[in-house]
Amino acid sequence: LDRTRGPAERHADEHANMSDVASAAGVSVSTVSRALRGKAGVSEATREKVRATAARLSYVVSPEASALARRSTGRVGVAVPHIGNWFCATMLAGLEPVLRRAELDVLIYHLRGAADRDRFFERLPVRRKVDALVLIALPLDEAQQERLDLLGTPVVVAGGRVDGRPHVAIDDVAVGRRAVEHLVALGHERIAMIRSRDHEGVVWPADHDRALGYRLTLQGAGLEVDDRLVVSEQWGPRGGRRAMARLLDRHPRPTAVFAVADEMALGAIEQLRRAGLAVPEDVSVIGVDEHPMSEPHDLTTIRQPVSELGATAGRMVVELLGGAELAEREVRLPTELVVRATTGPVTTRATTG
Amino acid sequence: LDRTRGPAERHADEHANMSDVASAAGVSVSTVSRALRGKAGVSEATREKVRATAARLSYVVSPEASALARRSTGRVGVAVPHIGNWFCATMLAGLEPVLRRAELDVLIYHLRGAADRDRFFERLPVRRKVDALVLIALPLDEAQQERLDLLGTPVVVAGGRVDGRPHVAIDDVAVGRRAVEHLVALGHERIAMIRSRDHEGVVWPADHDRALGYRLTLQGAGLEVDDRLVVSEQWGPRGGRRAMARLLDRHPRPTAVFAVADEMALGAIEQLRRAGLAVPEDVSVIGVDEHPMSEPHDLTTIRQPVSELGATAGRMVVELLGGAELAEREVRLPTELVVRATTGPVTTRATTG
Repeated sequence: LDRTRGPAERHADEHANMSDVASAAGVSVSTVSRALRGKAGVSEATREKVRATAARLSYVVSPEASALARRSTGRVGVAVPHIGNWFCATMLAGLEPVLRRAELDVLIYHLRGAADRDRFFERLPVRRKVDALVLIALPLDEAQQERLDLLGTPVVVAGGRVDGRPHVAIDDVAVGRRAVEHLVALGHERIAMIRSRDHEGVVWPADHDRALGYRLTLQGAGLEVDDRLVVSEQWGPRGGRRAMARLLDRHPRPTAVFAVADEMALGAIEQLRRAGLAVPEDVSVIGVDEHPMSEPHDLTTIRQPVSELGATAGRMVVELLGGAELAEREVRLPTELVVRATTGPVTTRATTG
Repeated sequence: LDRTRGPAERHADEHANMSDVASAAGVSVSTVSRALRGKAGVSEATREKVRATAARLSYVVSPEASALARRSTGRVGVAVPHIGNWFCATMLAGLEPVLRRAELDVLIYHLRGAADRDRFFERLPVRRKVDALVLIALPLDEAQQERLDLLGTPVVVAGGRVDGRPHVAIDDVAVGRRAVEHLVALGHERIAMIRSRDHEGVVWPADHDRALGYRLTLQGAGLEVDDRLVVSEQWGPRGGRRAMARLLDRHPRPTAVFAVADEMALGAIEQLRRAGLAVPEDVSVIGVDEHPMSEPHDLTTIRQPVSELGATAGRMVVELLGGAELAEREVRLPTELVVRATTGPVTTRATTG
């Protein structure tokens, strides 16, 4: 047991605590209140004395009472699908410290699927609980987007777009273009794409846009868009393996594969190895993300700044809550082609495989 | 804009909102209050009518006001290191739905390193903001553990132990034993271990306990414990590669490797491939976790129920907040050896390699 606890710990009642601080500091309760809430009319010396006394007694202003007083909660809601997913978790990891530094607490809402999303937008459990809401990479229908008007708080979208809302994202069409242009420049003509669905079969907007970039680039290069070379599996490394197994059944088989995410690309590479094929000599593979597994596996990828997407959304929230106009309401962060060992020039061995 | 909004949306003031519901339902404000807060003295029919009216007007009880009234916040704090890390994110993904179902909001505190931990335990920012605190897999010193007494709320530890606090964890010594027993049973005698440090050089308790299991098993089997076969690198696949590169410099080299986590094991396997060595013919590799990458890579591992650790911690919190005595204050969840393709019997090729 900690014997250093002051009287402040022994009572749950705020007034008694404030009285304790007032007695100990030799000032009135009202002075303590003004000093701790940063109001005018208290000298800096008194403010310092009150703060020191409050710290010594481990006194904290009741956050509920002060939230009611200033009609703000000091909290930001963050709605996130699949917390266990690297992309979402990393975005959250980028977002949280920015909000924390602004003394905003983060309330997490984990929307794991369509039912969770429906319930969230129907009931809006964040109402009056948060000063702002951040939506991380969620597929929303129009009705859900409209429900957000009921919140009466700023809404910032990270890793996606909602019309009329401030958002930060990457250009996913450009991601698809960049990946496929890299393969085309290496001489590949039979370029497959591994797409993804979530566990409920939903195709997410990023996947859709990357597939568009894939098609546009093939068309622009005068190459055939062969629908049999586009396969979709459940998101993740297992899905990547299954997708690659299906692609290896095509004749002639693709000489290069663009996977919508590194975790699918790594699964695809594992499947190629098991089939006795060499990467990139038989098949080149490129992913998207720069997942922590990618560099150790020498995967060529399109890096996206996931943590920075979260941090930027956090800064937008802080600016909005500070009453500022956002300099930019639609922020695009850059992506980058990272060439490593899993892509290479097309070989005779690959085209005759 | 949503034209279906009722008058409740137009005012931030709770009383006015409640009046709107009262007028629309044809009852008194006090009846609305009692009905929505679940108090006695309201007939079921009236309660239903009030609920329906409140729902139609999108009215919600002010969570702040009702928290003050019942002296509870409706929130649980969750302190988590490295949200971006699969283990922590998956535990959070298991925990959140359990708390959500109990209508508890989740406040996240991301403690990324020693400085964040020091600040958190010094300032205890969760005080009066939460009804309970969950600590996910954090290394705490004694002073930090004592500070928790100041909270005056239940504290539940998930993925670790804090003396005197309810906790749910796996037996990490048994994990180390199980992994090494598997390798010993396959005839391996030169068994290496890849250990980890975090980005600040801290060795976490799970790593320490798994290393203890490794040593005890080797000793129990009458095998030499060769300190040159135990290497430590920064946590993650890149660290796994570096650790394996160091182990390949040992003569004679190990015929099997126990890695403290799958993500390090997968990095080690990549390094073996690059060195032209076959897994398991030249070197067997076993990890711990059952990370999503493990099955697609056919990695032998000790599965731990990460999501279930989080869910169990959530259930303990809900029980404690319901005023229940916990049936078990120290819960151990089982782990399981999953044998796949990266471990095999020791070969002459391996021992003469």
